[in-house]
Formats: sequence, structure tokens, C-alpha cells
Amino acid sequence: MNDGRGNGYYLNLGEYIDALEKAGKLVRVKEPINKDTQMHPLVRLQFRGLEEKDRKAFLFENVVDSSGRKYDIPVVLCAMAGSGEIYALGLKCKPEEIAERWAAARANPIAPRVVDKGPVHDVVITGDELQKSGLSRLPVPISTPGFDNAPYLSAGHWISKDPETGVHNVGNYRGMVKSETRIGCFSGSSEQGIGIHIRKWRKAGHRSMPVAIVIGVPPNVSYTSVSRIPYDMCEYDVAGSLAGAPLELVRCKTVDLLVPAQSEIVIEGHISLEFLEMEGPFAEFTGFMAKRDYSYFMDVTCIAMKKRPIFAAFLSQFPPSESSKLRGIARENAMRRCLLEDGMTNILDIHQMEVAGSWGVTVIKIKRESDRDAQRVFDSLAPKGHLGKIAIVVDEDVDARDPLAIFWALAFRMQPHRDVRIIDNYRNVLDPSIVDCALDRNAVKVEDEPRSSLLLIDATRDWNYPPIALPNRDTMEQAIAMWKKLGLSELNLKRPWYGYDLGYWSEEDKSEAKLALEGRYFETGEKHQAKRRPFET
Amino acid sequence: MNDGRGNGYYLNLGEYIDALEKAGKLVRVKEPINKDTQMHPLVRLQFRGLEEKDRKAFLFENVVDSSGRKYDIPVVLCAMAGSGEIYALGLKCKPEEIAERWAAARANPIAPRVVDKGPVHDVVITGDELQKSGLSRLPVPISTPGFDNAPYLSAGHWISKDPETGVHNVGNYRGMVKSETRIGCFSGSSEQGIGIHIRKWRKAGHRSMPVAIVIGVPPNVSYTSVSRIPYDMCEYDVAGSLAGAPLELVRCKTVDLLVPAQSEIVIEGHISLEFLEMEGPFAEFTGFMAKRDYSYFMDVTCIAMKKRPIFAAFLSQFPPSESSKLRGIARENAMRRCLLEDGMTNILDIHQMEVAGSWGVTVIKIKRESDRDAQRVFDSLAPKGHLGKIAIVVDEDVDARDPLAIFWALAFRMQPHRDVRIIDNYRNVLDPSIVDCALDRNAVKVEDEPRSSLLLIDATRDWNYPPIALPNRDTMEQAIAMWKKLGLSELNLKRPWYGYDLGYWSEEDKSEAKLALEGRYFETGEKHQAKRRPFET
Repeated sequence: MNDGRGNGYYLNLGEYIDALEKAGKLVRVKEPINKDTQMHPLVRLQFRGLEEKDRKAFLFENVVDSSGRKYDIPVVLCAMAGSGEIYALGLKCKPEEIAERWAAARANPIAPRVVDKGPVHDVVITGDELQKSGLSRLPVPISTPGFDNAPYLSAGHWISKDPETGVHNVGNYRGMVKSETRIGCFSGSSEQGIGIHIRKWRKAGHRSMPVAIVIGVPPNVSYTSVSRIPYDMCEYDVAGSLAGAPLELVRCKTVDLLVPAQSEIVIEGHISLEFLEMEGPFAEFTGFMAKRDYSYFMDVTCIAMKKRPIFAAFLSQFPPSESSKLRGIARENAMRRCLLEDGMTNILDIHQMEVAGSWGVTVIKIKRESDRDAQRVFDSLAPKGHLGKIAIVVDEDVDARDPLAIFWALAFRMQPHRDVRIIDNYRNVLDPSIVDCALDRNAVKVEDEPRSSLLLIDATRDWNYPPIALPNRDTMEQAIAMWKKLGLSELNLKRPWYGYDLGYWSEEDKSEAKLALEGRYFETGEKHQAKRRPFET
Repeated sequence: MNDGRGNGYYLNLGEYIDALEKAGKLVRVKEPINKDTQMHPLVRLQFRGLEEKDRKAFLFENVVDSSGRKYDIPVVLCAMAGSGEIYALGLKCKPEEIAERWAAARANPIAPRVVDKGPVHDVVITGDELQKSGLSRLPVPISTPGFDNAPYLSAGHWISKDPETGVHNVGNYRGMVKSETRIGCFSGSSEQGIGIHIRKWRKAGHRSMPVAIVIGVPPNVSYTSVSRIPYDMCEYDVAGSLAGAPLELVRCKTVDLLVPAQSEIVIEGHISLEFLEMEGPFAEFTGFMAKRDYSYFMDVTCIAMKKRPIFAAFLSQFPPSESSKLRGIARENAMRRCLLEDGMTNILDIHQMEVAGSWGVTVIKIKRESDRDAQRVFDSLAPKGHLGKIAIVVDEDVDARDPLAIFWALAFRMQPHRDVRIIDNYRNVLDPSIVDCALDRNAVKVEDEPRSSLLLIDATRDWNYPPIALPNRDTMEQAIAMWKKLGLSELNLKRPWYGYDLGYWSEEDKSEAKLALEGRYFETGEKHQAKRRPFET
């Protein structure tokens, strides 16, 4: 346990990559690959052309760039969340146990432990050496060649601390590489994570704020960096809990911050609290390029790394992507917790549709107990900003993860005038539908118009329904046996695949169906004849 | 051309089944199969467990029933619309040509031709012979064993005629087998097809209306039987046009009606205009059992058939099914025509989601020309009853047939308060969400409450958007080449798979992206440094 791994959890990124390879989830590319033009397009293909189960992490061992430079640092992509199965490997659990693992970790945080030294300080670059060759040492790939205006850190976990309490925040923000020693920072909101720190440091009169960017960590740290953790709790505590042992931290060389001792690379420096610089455009999770605008930037004072570090990047941008998987699981966990805190014990599943960037469409599956259940879900989640554009509550027999099942529920379990509500919502600065893109991005921050709204849909049955229109389980199971005997194409059955009772089905219905199965349906016809009635006029 | 086939179109169902088999789209089952318990469950499996492209038609050659009876009439299921490819075979065209084939047929109807005799009259059963053994001769399968209360005709095309004009109607309605000589009829609405005829014959003082049910016809007749054809036009005219030659008709033996000479089976008789009988429950396209209620019934006077007829059934009920495919294509065609008649020339695609029973969710893809385009689409379709529960208008770059693409568009191209409208709609008597199922079905017919409503969503971009967040086409095409060279898993690329311009992209954006591709992004960083601005306070 002295080495910081709990219950055999991965000590560092390298150990985890080995585990991915053993599980058949790694593609190792030895051929030279241009990080500016070739790397992301290659990995992107699996998100447009493969099923999720077939997606893998990619390790590029021979990285070059458009200037002809060769890097001795390999790059790993999609190692954290290339698929749900990969994410589960990162937690050392089964895919269906992810939610449970997160709930347990949040409930039992484990504080980190500060140690004297760590491998991340094997190599320390500062001063003139840094000025001459700083960020260009790192093989930062261009995520969206042809549209992005620079390489951006996509898996840079930014560390900062509250000036009063010293509590650290770990947040994943995009970082635009601007020079050997300057990185742009876009955090999205001044109401969360690093944004709050920047406001506090400015208010305290500081002209800059110390910051560190950690790149390449074991999955527990990456997973917490994209999660919403309460402000007074540190991501390091939850990361420790996910691993089952305290996370070991070392003090930075040029700023007063603590970073994981087993990080592959750490970039230290300060964010200016006096000036802003242009940042973007950068391809975002909405599926569209995010506009350029003024934003924070960091002056780098030190780059520290292992002797043989691995550079890590997330495949983000057009959904689904690695980042939509990461964000989706994090947001689902946060909602689950929020609903539980508000006393909803009948939540069966929560799904952020990846194709909507794990933000725009949320499906909540409940065991319906009262007419007000869906409204209680909305009342709990909406005010806390958990919902994006559309939230749909479905019944226990609808697969919340199957978009077709959702459309089926929308078609036959709701009436718009009764079950649809539109309310105002927090504005997502990256949502291009709020305000004309030709206007200033800050226009969305004003307090009245332009509005951003939320579509709330209760797609649960308002009363008992007749059974599902499929043959009963018995005849379907016999059909499966016959199907196999006939040697027909292999089946991959989707629920529902047999009919079942949904509360409205009488004894008469049952007995007629039974007679029919026995071939005695003329008896039903005779009964009908005896009970004829005249036309109404 | 004398035999009624135009341009080599299928003469009868048998010829078409041969074509299906040649195309690898037929499963021939020689083993004994119980029509009451085994047949539909077996074929149902392909709709729950196979991809659409792998679905086939099934021909059962050895049909038995729960009473131990053996039938000498084979049964074919899913021959008309087991999949889009099968439907296209039925029209002798490619799947992508279906809409065009329909538009041409509707524009150029070909009147049928009455002939003296046809093979459907090879065997004629009437009188005592019919009373003793009528409908039990036919291998009518139970569609939903365990829930349906009888075998129902699912592909029975009901023929009736206007008492004044003599114009025939051909409509596909479910027919409950009640005795050797009685069949229940549920037509859904008194405002369409046979419902109009029944009202007119009653109004004219008749106590019964002559009717014939045709079972087993070439695809052109089946396809028109489920289409909405204007009241003054006959389905036979469109069927002729689809085949490219007049449909040959013969006069019935016991009623004054004309039916296709090449039908496999014809059931003749009268619908009572004095009495109604209980009918249902029957599994419906909504995915739920439809409730029992009083409905029409027919007294059979004659069964005529070929020497070796084939009995045809549709796989209906839980969507997707054969019937949702049939209805979907028919409804899409009707909408296309409606929008064109209303002057909308910018409609690129219309899609009825099968999972919503080809009724509940309609997606209309347009080339957006003005802010009012979506509204014009809704104004054209909604008053004529073309829309079900939800209608969504999307842009030209969104795949209207991909449910995930629809959710992406909903998430980032619409604002609920601006783009969503709820209006009253016609009531679909089979929609279980309108009124408590425990109440009488007729309650939905009253003129005030309960309401049925329609959710109209304009999910098109309201202004120019930044480009799609994917690498440009050039780098993606190179990535595809590299992917193949590396021998990675086979790709099945989904659109969009490269980034493209959507109107908002400046010269500065372009030139910075170009510099980045060349590795010259520090030049952009220098420009940013020179244009810093102070924090706003």
C-alpha cells in the first residue's frame, strides 16, 4: 500500500495501458503519425464507423508533426472512455457496476497523502531551457485538423486552489498552445471550478493565480476531473476513494500546489488576472465549432515529467466521443445523487444521450408511483442546472438507453398538451441555438433575453394500459427454439420481445385468448352473436 | 399484355414469391407449423432480433392448427414489406426509387379492365357446403398468441363501393374470424374508406352492404390497399399504374363487386347495417393491445379461390413490423404529395419512424429557405390529419432516418420556447394515451375533452452556424486510407464523418486553421498576445 495503490488499483497510466492491452482494448501504432493532421482523424473514424463495443484505445509510439519534428513521447487517445467497457476497466469493475462504484466513492472520500518526491519530478525544465523549448517538447495533437487554430490540451487537468481555504480543484479544461510558455484556458463558466477560484483570487487583489496542469494520470484522477464535485470537497478525495487508497501528491516546483506524484507530465505556471487573450475557435461537444472569444491564459514557469512519460489526450468534439462518454457518466452520477438527496427512491436509470453531447437529452427511467413523479424529477434536477435541452421521464419497461424505445414512449405514452412543459434554463455558452452566432458570445450572458429553455416531457403511462402487442412469453420462447432448429440467422433480441400485462386486462380477455390458443375461437364468436346490439343513429 | 401484366410485372402472388426466393429474400418452411401458436411468434423474432436488411419473407408449406387440422393452403408472411428491400422488390425498383415510383403512379392512374373469368373462380364454395366448412378451410393465423381472442385476417383487402357512383374502395382492415360464415370488421374510422360507404348505404336505407375480401394479390394491389387515395379515385387505378398495365377484374359470384382476377382467395358477403358485434381485443401497431368494442361484421355468402391458392398475412402489431413499413411508405407518399400541392418545393425527405408505428413521429427534412418553412410544413400537413403525435423539421444535413441524428438536432438546433408548438389534433382511437383505458373507447369521439394533441418542433438552424466539429474532409479521407493500411476493423461510416461549413466561418478562422495544419500555430499565439485586453470588472 506504500506505493499509493489501493486494492491493486493502477499505480499510473502505464500500468493501466498494459491492462487495456491485455483486455484486447488497445491498438498500438508503431508507424510514424503526424499529430497535427493524422492522429485525431484516424481515431475519430471509430466513432463514426464502428459500434461502441468495437472501439479501442490507441497508443501512438512514433509521433511526428507538420514541422518535421519527431517526439520521443508517445500519445495515448481514448484510454479513459473510448467505450463504456473501457471506462469500466478504468474503474476495475463491470460496466453495469459503474454507477454503484461512483456512489460508494462519493459517500466515502479518502483524503490524499502528501509525499516528498514522485516520478513526475524525474525531469524538471525551467528558466532559459524552458523559454527555448517548452511546450514544443510535448506532442499536443490538433483535435480537428482543418478547423482548430492550434493544438489544444484535451486531457489537461487544471489544478488551482481556493485562496482562503486552500482546498484544491481539479478540472478538465481545453488549453490552447500559444507559445513555448503560454497556454489559453477556456473553462466555460465562472460559476464552477477554476472560474470561482479566478474570481476569488482577483477579489483578493492578486495579479495572477498559481495553476498546474496535470497530463497523464491513472483513470480515477481523470474521471474525477470531469465530475461535478461539491465546492468544499476535493477531487483528490474522491479519486482516492475510487482507487481504495489515498492518492499520493507532491508539491510543485515553482507554484504552491499539490499534484499527483504519479502524473506523467505537469505544467506549472500562473493565470493572468489582469489580461485576457483571444482563444478558439475549437471544435466542441455540441458537434459544432465553438466561436473565438477572449479568455484566460497561463504563463508557464516549469514543465516536469517522468523519464519516459506518456502524453494523454481525449477524443472530444462531435458526439459521440470519448469526452461525451466521460461527461455522460459523470452527469448521470451527479443526477442520481441529486434525486436521492431529494428523496426520490424510485429512480431506475438515468441516461445522458451521448449523441446530444451527454448534455442535451436526458432520459430518466422511474418506477411510477404517482401522477407527480415526473414533475418531482424535473423540480429536483432543473433548478440545479443538471438538465440541458430536453428531459424525458419514462416507465420501468422502457429502455432508457435505446433511442427508438424513447420515440415509442413519446408516441404512445404522452399527450403534448398534458405532459409537456417548457421552462427557462441556464444558458450553455456553447449551445449555438440560443443567439445568432454572428453576435458576441457574451450576449448570452445578459439577464433577460436571449432566453435558453428546457423541454420537460412526462412520457409515463397515466393509467393502466392494455398488454404489449407481442405474443406471450411462452409462445415466443418456443419460437426461439424453433428458430434455432431451423438454422436461421443469429438473433440479438431487443426488449420487449414478448407481450406482458400493463394493468388493463380483464378475466374475459384472458379466457378468450386462452380459447383462441386452443383453436376454440368460434365459441367466442357465438357469444358475440348472442350479445349483438343495434347501430346507434 | 393480354394476361394483365404490364412491363413484365408480377402476374400474381406466386410469381412474386418466386422472385423473392431468387433474390434470397424467402425462407421456405417445410416443417409442420401451428398457425395458432407458432407461426407469428417465429416470424416476429426477426423484428426483435435481426437488422432490417436481414429480414425475409416466410412461406409455410405445412400448416396445422391447435385442433389438429392440416391445411393444404400454404401461408406467406412478410412478403409485401418485411423490409424496405422487400418492398422495393414488390415495386420492381431500388429502395431509393420507391418514392418516385409512387409519385409517378399517382400522377398517371391506369383504369382497370373487366374480364369474363379469372383463376380466382377455379373453386367456388357457396350454400350448404359453405355453411358446413367455410372460413375453417382457410389457414388464418393468430397474430398474437396469448392475447388475441381469435385468428384475424391481417392482409384482407376489403372491397366495397359507393352506392351512388359505383366507385370501388380497397382497404385493408383487420377481420376477426367468428364462425364458418361470419367475420368481424374494424376499420378504425368512419371518415375513411369503407366507413364512408357504410354511412352512405345506411343513409340510402339498405339493411346490408355488399362486400368482398381479397386475400393474396400481387404487391401493387396490397400496396394501394393501405394507401390513402382520394375518395373519387379507385385504388385499382393506382395499382394498374404501379404495374404499368390495367389490372384485370372479375365480377363476384354472389355480390355486385369487382375483384382482381388473379387473387388467390376472395370472400364475398354482406356487412350488416342493422347490428354491431363485439370485436377485439387485438394487438395493434401502437405496440399495445387494442381494446374490445362493438364493431361491424360480415355474413359470408361465398368463398372463391384458385386451385392451389396461397394465403397471405401481414406481420403487424408491435412496431417495427411489416405493417409499419407498409403504412410508413404510404403515409410518406401522401405527405409528399400534400406538401407539393401546397407549393413546398424544398422538401428533401419525409420519414415516419417505424418504431412509432409509422404514425407517432414524423421527421421532415427541408432545404431551409426562410424562417417560416417549418411552420408552412406544419400548416400544410396538420389540418389534413397527416401528423400523429410529434412532427420534427430538420435541416438538409441531418439524416431524417437516423434517430440519433434527430436527437442531436433537437439538442443543438432548437430552443423550446421559440421552436416548439402544441396544437390540437385528430384523435387516433388506438392511441392509449388520450383517455383512461378503463373508460369506453367511444369517449374519445366526443367533441370537447378528452383532447389529443400534436407536438410541432422546428429543429432547423435559425442562423448561420459554425462548422461541424469534425476534421476536414481531406484529413478524414487520408485517415480512412491509413485505417485500411493498418488493417483495423471494417468501418461502416455514418454521416457526418467530416467537418463542413454551415455559413459562419471567417477568413481569419480559415487562415488560422491553415497555419495550424502547417505547424505554425505560434504565429497565431503571437497575434493573440499583441491583441490582449484587460479583464472587465
